[in-house]
Amino acid sequence: MQLDKDSILAANGSLHNHEADFNHLAEKLSRSHTDVEALVKKIADFQVAVPSWALGAGGTRFGRFSFHGEPATLEQKIADVGILHALTQTAGAVSLHIPWDVPTDYAAVKQIADQNGIVFDAINSNTFQDQPGAKLSYKHGSLANTDEAIRAQAVEHNHEVVRIGEKLGSKSLTVWLADGTSFPGQRSFQKALAQTEKSCKEIYAGMPDDWSLLIEYKPYEPNFYSTVIMDWGTSFMLANACGERAYTLVDLGHHLPNSNIEQVVATLMAKGKLGGFHFNDSKYGDDDLTVGSIKPYALFLIFNELVYGMEHNPQNPDLAWMIDASHNVKDPLEDLIQSLEAIQEAYAKALLVDQKALAAAQLNHDVVQCQEILQGAYRTDVRPLLERARLSRGGALDPLGAYRTLRVREGLIGERGKHTVATGL
Amino acid sequence: MQLDKDSILAANGSLHNHEADFNHLAEKLSRSHTDVEALVKKIADFQVAVPSWALGAGGTRFGRFSFHGEPATLEQKIADVGILHALTQTAGAVSLHIPWDVPTDYAAVKQIADQNGIVFDAINSNTFQDQPGAKLSYKHGSLANTDEAIRAQAVEHNHEVVRIGEKLGSKSLTVWLADGTSFPGQRSFQKALAQTEKSCKEIYAGMPDDWSLLIEYKPYEPNFYSTVIMDWGTSFMLANACGERAYTLVDLGHHLPNSNIEQVVATLMAKGKLGGFHFNDSKYGDDDLTVGSIKPYALFLIFNELVYGMEHNPQNPDLAWMIDASHNVKDPLEDLIQSLEAIQEAYAKALLVDQKALAAAQLNHDVVQCQEILQGAYRTDVRPLLERARLSRGGALDPLGAYRTLRVREGLIGERGKHTVATGL
Amino acid sequence: MQLDKDSILAANGSLHNHEADFNHLAEKLSRSHTDVEALVKKIADFQVAVPSWALGAGGTRFGRFSFHGEPATLEQKIADVGILHALTQTAGAVSLHIPWDVPTDYAAVKQIADQNGIVFDAINSNTFQDQPGAKLSYKHGSLANTDEAIRAQAVEHNHEVVRIGEKLGSKSLTVWLADGTSFPGQRSFQKALAQTEKSCKEIYAGMPDDWSLLIEYKPYEPNFYSTVIMDWGTSFMLANACGERAYTLVDLGHHLPNSNIEQVVATLMAKGKLGGFHFNDSKYGDDDLTVGSIKPYALFLIFNELVYGMEHNPQNPDLAWMIDASHNVKDPLEDLIQSLEAIQEAYAKALLVDQKALAAAQLNHDVVQCQEILQGAYRTDVRPLLERARLSRGGALDPLGAYRTLRVREGLIGERGKHTVATGL
Amino acid sequence: MQLDKDSILAANGSLHNHEADFNHLAEKLSRSHTDVEALVKKIADFQVAVPSWALGAGGTRFGRFSFHGEPATLEQKIADVGILHALTQTAGAVSLHIPWDVPTDYAAVKQIADQNGIVFDAINSNTFQDQPGAKLSYKHGSLANTDEAIRAQAVEHNHEVVRIGEKLGSKSLTVWLADGTSFPGQRSFQKALAQTEKSCKEIYAGMPDDWSLLIEYKPYEPNFYSTVIMDWGTSFMLANACGERAYTLVDLGHHLPNSNIEQVVATLMAKGKLGGFHFNDSKYGDDDLTVGSIKPYALFLIFNELVYGMEHNPQNPDLAWMIDASHNVKDPLEDLIQSLEAIQEAYAKALLVDQKALAAAQLNHDVVQCQEILQGAYRTDVRPLLERARLSRGGALDPLGAYRTLRVREGLIGERGKHTVATGL
Repeated sequence: MQLDKDSILAANGSLHNHEADFNHLAEKLSRSHTDVEALVKKIADFQVAVPSWALGAGGTRFGRFSFHGEPATLEQKIADVGILHALTQTAGAVSLHIPWDVPTDYAAVKQIADQNGIVFDAINSNTFQDQPGAKLSYKHGSLANTDEAIRAQAVEHNHEVVRIGEKLGSKSLTVWLADGTSFPGQRSFQKALAQTEKSCKEIYAGMPDDWSLLIEYKPYEPNFYSTVIMDWGTSFMLANACGERAYTLVDLGHHLPNSNIEQVVATLMAKGKLGGFHFNDSKYGDDDLTVGSIKPYALFLIFNELVYGMEHNPQNPDLAWMIDASHNVKDPLEDLIQSLEAIQEAYAKALLVDQKALAAAQLNHDVVQCQEILQGAYRTDVRPLLERARLSRGGALDPLGAYRTLRVREGLIGERGKHTVATGL
Repeated sequence: MQLDKDSILAANGSLHNHEADFNHLAEKLSRSHTDVEALVKKIADFQVAVPSWALGAGGTRFGRFSFHGEPATLEQKIADVGILHALTQTAGAVSLHIPWDVPTDYAAVKQIADQNGIVFDAINSNTFQDQPGAKLSYKHGSLANTDEAIRAQAVEHNHEVVRIGEKLGSKSLTVWLADGTSFPGQRSFQKALAQTEKSCKEIYAGMPDDWSLLIEYKPYEPNFYSTVIMDWGTSFMLANACGERAYTLVDLGHHLPNSNIEQVVATLMAKGKLGGFHFNDSKYGDDDLTVGSIKPYALFLIFNELVYGMEHNPQNPDLAWMIDASHNVKDPLEDLIQSLEAIQEAYAKALLVDQKALAAAQLNHDVVQCQEILQGAYRTDVRPLLERARLSRGGALDPLGAYRTLRVREGLIGERGKHTVATGL
Repeated sequence: MQLDKDSILAANGSLHNHEADFNHLAEKLSRSHTDVEALVKKIADFQVAVPSWALGAGGTRFGRFSFHGEPATLEQKIADVGILHALTQTAGAVSLHIPWDVPTDYAAVKQIADQNGIVFDAINSNTFQDQPGAKLSYKHGSLANTDEAIRAQAVEHNHEVVRIGEKLGSKSLTVWLADGTSFPGQRSFQKALAQTEKSCKEIYAGMPDDWSLLIEYKPYEPNFYSTVIMDWGTSFMLANACGERAYTLVDLGHHLPNSNIEQVVATLMAKGKLGGFHFNDSKYGDDDLTVGSIKPYALFLIFNELVYGMEHNPQNPDLAWMIDASHNVKDPLEDLIQSLEAIQEAYAKALLVDQKALAAAQLNHDVVQCQEILQGAYRTDVRPLLERARLSRGGALDPLGAYRTLRVREGLIGERGKHTVATGL
Repeated sequence: MQLDKDSILAANGSLHNHEADFNHLAEKLSRSHTDVEALVKKIADFQVAVPSWALGAGGTRFGRFSFHGEPATLEQKIADVGILHALTQTAGAVSLHIPWDVPTDYAAVKQIADQNGIVFDAINSNTFQDQPGAKLSYKHGSLANTDEAIRAQAVEHNHEVVRIGEKLGSKSLTVWLADGTSFPGQRSFQKALAQTEKSCKEIYAGMPDDWSLLIEYKPYEPNFYSTVIMDWGTSFMLANACGERAYTLVDLGHHLPNSNIEQVVATLMAKGKLGGFHFNDSKYGDDDLTVGSIKPYALFLIFNELVYGMEHNPQNPDLAWMIDASHNVKDPLEDLIQSLEAIQEAYAKALLVDQKALAAAQLNHDVVQCQEILQGAYRTDVRPLLERARLSRGGALDPLGAYRTLRVREGLIGERGKHTVATGL
């Protein structure tokens, strides 16, 4: 199933209210000398990768409730991303997970991606599960394992993932390392760290010269006492040890309670070491909820640092953006539409922050005014800007509404049947 | 210093942009059958008490940085609230703290309050500090103390506070009980709870028939192992034990990390036991920051429950609303203006939630639509509504701007001098 | 496989060191007038139920690593508990989970239990997963569902569980209700609570007169925004609404960060409403780790309240004790042996607390001495007491050592094969 | 007041029970080839600094309850440390805080310290408060301030502190930087970090060649949105930027909820960058409670890493150990005695861990055995070893008991009067 521009156009219907809203807002913003056209252009250009595993229903350790019309093949997953991109015009990339998504026919897969306007962003390895027929088990760790043969198997898996990614046009490898312990004493912290550093260097050495290594961190889960790469400091240390194309990747859900994530982002960008970013939201742990569904102001504050860094930190690379959420009680595609909208919204609001006025207020220690500036941007209803950005690229005025009007899920069920199950968790 | 309506009117200047913004929003809201006039009326009617101790600079255990022009007397504190109310038209009440605010001349104090349009809301007792000349010390507790004489002194202090409140027109007593322990074993949990229940009943028994007792809870600080009234469950149990005019008071900062405060609010209102509410914001503990400065969406979700309860729970009393924030790096009056605006904003957005559509979506298990409804209301820029509400009562279009234009702080320093210090913490 | 007393006796070997350790400790304790014999008797009498689902390997949402020789049938599960009990003499009960453990032959099951000295403790229902062939889905809730038919199905399931339990000799039903939401607005808090209360009352009404209803609470997971029965206050309120044989059940892992669980325990026992207790340990969330592996002092403080309540609160019923841990990287039986030892240890140390001296120090506000008393008990090495308690009942001097010496796991693999999988999560 | 060895000897009374306990334990430990004499020697050699500000009563932001007989002068503070050291023989150092402790007569101060066997450990600067008569205010920051003159004043203060320390024999400067923000947007994260790095380098450049710079970190308080040096990663980055004699200092209370502090310790020691350690305990935030009063097992796990590092990481310097607790409801000297005992206990238990057996179990992935080894050490009652270590140096068998028997507090009140107040917070 592929959505064509005409049907989206038809679903959009009258633009009358949009025009009125946009014009009112544009006039308002112009008063403060905002270049509205440039703003819309920036929003329209912002693209986020969708991970292939986010297109099916997720679950918890207590089970999983089924969902209908899930994509059963890599081709179907890319088609799903294509639907999202057609509607939102902001999901122009897919992020694969190996071994769940090993292509059988590379040419065919690339063709489908091309047809849908989708490129292949960072590719992900998996050493946190045993694959059927695997020679050695990762039960007690992979890159940090005490056993050299297991570490070698895990390093080689990462190299294989890079080779697959190369054929598809990816330029970066994301390593999320679940290695850690569930009980005190289970493993030597120092040795686990040293072995992880060694394994990361081996992975890095085996990558092409134009590839980046993105090192994710996480404090806990699936290990419940310690994780080898537990925080940004550890990831940053490892990235420095690997080399200049190794970077830290921040996942919003991978932090201890009350962490100030925006400060982490600012620190990493100042040091030129923020390589990737995974979006989701959470209240308790790594809850993987829809982006912006719990703490939208925190997301805005983080985007405020991201925008600042993108404008002022040439030492930092372009970021690999990805949604990393899980969908238990919503239609995955609807959930992703909501996430994409929340990301665009936070980005647009961050772009509205008057950085010069903010810097001046900071210099004057005018704390009240600093807050006024941030909240002035945040309180602005930017939905007309997002609409305009989507329309400018042939997308939907209201992606969720169009998804329902066009009966996309029903179409997918018709094509695929009810009881397919996507590969993944 | 008292702000007259004419100077505020002058500070408002042209209403041209306000009119355009309001009209655009009103038209938009009318499309979804919102009665905009009624909405503005509700916002304008919402009044929040300012506590007398919030008008001076606060501090931390690491010290306090001074601020200029602080109110040194109760009369000056009420004048400060009067300034806030004149500008915002939403601060029409003051909440006193005894013994910091014992009036010397009741008639004079009431007259100043009248002139400023200020009423006396819930009054607060203090048994967490020793007062100069106190016979017995609260070092090891007050209402929960093992020593009967100390408990009696603390109960009698609360009765005295009620007598003071009666003369001023207050109708409720707020008890925040700091009693607890900093070390395991320091005190019997069971005995401390039993003695607290006894003391609360004695306080309740000594109140006039038209008074309410508001029982606050808090998990920690100033005690760091346990607090006798640690959570809503404990407060609720005590309120039930005291009688039907005893209620739980929720302070936003008095919760463990990740608490779902909106669910607590909903539960208490369903049971008719939510009596008061203290506004502030926080990231780590009881940080007492400006309302809405850290988690504005959480505040909106809480207001969504409050609005629901106010409309559907006749079993629950009218609430005593108060700001309970502390001001270390901002001018206290400017900070309170920002807090008042954040409260109004959250209230206005909660009023925009289409409760019928939400109930229908809930019944259909349409989780995506439920989120759309809530976030649709939240994403609306309601500032034109707040402006209109203030203007309708003779307040400032932009209270913070007017405060600065009218050079209020400079005026207060001129009247009071630089180095006054407000009574309080 | 069943362990006979002779092989355990043989595994015990020489008791020489035990005798020396025990005598030294006994003399030491006698100096402070402790009745050592009575102490050993109390420890020996303390019995904890093992849940049937804890005998196989657990997993996380990221997968599950296999374990060998798992019990595939209910009979094998009871045999496993029998092995634990033979070694530790403290696991004399099993707690079943329906529908995972529906007996096919009640007489046979009871006979195996009898042979192993195992009784049937609280029985557990499951409405957090859909069972194959279920008519209606619990995806959007069970006892709190908006749909009356789904609620009725869930209530009826609980009644069926009671009927099964009756045939086995259980006397209580544990309800853990996963119902909640993952997104704000998904469900009306007030309606969900009201419907849960109604459903609980229906379950309660359908129980025999000598049965108890144990209502568990949990703040989050598998729902990640709210849970209907989120805390002890909500459970307590529901238990009060149901009737006098309805109680709150505390699970150590079901609390927000930094909760003071011992105070919750003390409060519930004072009110006669603590009905059951689930043991495990955790650092981050509901990690379900081996009891005592992370915070053994917290466990001791909790037992201090439990012991106090068992001695001073006749209004509180006998408790249903159960281990509720999950075993991902350890042999489940070894893990349970460690948990059982940790429970006994904490209980023994709590029994050593000199309650009279503690009460006196509390009365004197001698905080330093209070701590000395608690820590004096805690610092005591009570292992000789546990050894003696086990020996007095024919158990192992060192259960874990005996388990390994007797090559129990190898025996089970021999009997059952390597690749069995236990029913459960 | 100075305690002489004879009076302590007299207070010790009979050693009969100690001998029996020690001999029993020694025999037990010898069975596992522990060199008990060497063990006692190590325990006896371990010395911890007492900070001068811990000798008076602390408070919270809600006030402070007075304590009697507090030291009013630097000389009296050192005398207090002398008393602690005489009793415990483990408090052989003091850590001064400038400007609270500027000596007026260096020779006299050094003489008193000599008489009491006390050396001067790391010295602390203070730029989190304004001192009376200070030219510029730290209200909006010190080392990270936007204002160059304020930064220069703060750097110069640190240089002055070093000069004072030099005269007393200190060899390291501890910088705890409270700089941060209470509101989003208040300060540029990137600029604050850059200016802090610059200031730290200036401080470092001004230190003698044999001095170390210890950089403390803390996530929040007294700032409640962000702190410039928020975590070990930031401190580590700054220490690397300064040079090889700059190190990270870990304070147990300065972490987000659920942090794995032992892993931080292990990481820093592996990298040769752990310079100092502050002991205290906490349940909620930086509660500054008696060491070991809340989470003694966590303390043991941390000591397990410290002992490992001290034995295996020659790249890491000797550590500056200090207690950083606050005393609100206990006699400060009694509180410190309890803290010192808890530190020794955790150290002794960590020394008992069989590192070889642990490494072997880790290599075998025998997680159960790893836990047995750690908990086997932890469960051992090491009090006889601590007694022996103290006795070997002429200290008290039971320091707290001796403190009370010798009526030390009463003596201090006699000398100093009741209502002295120590300088400090």
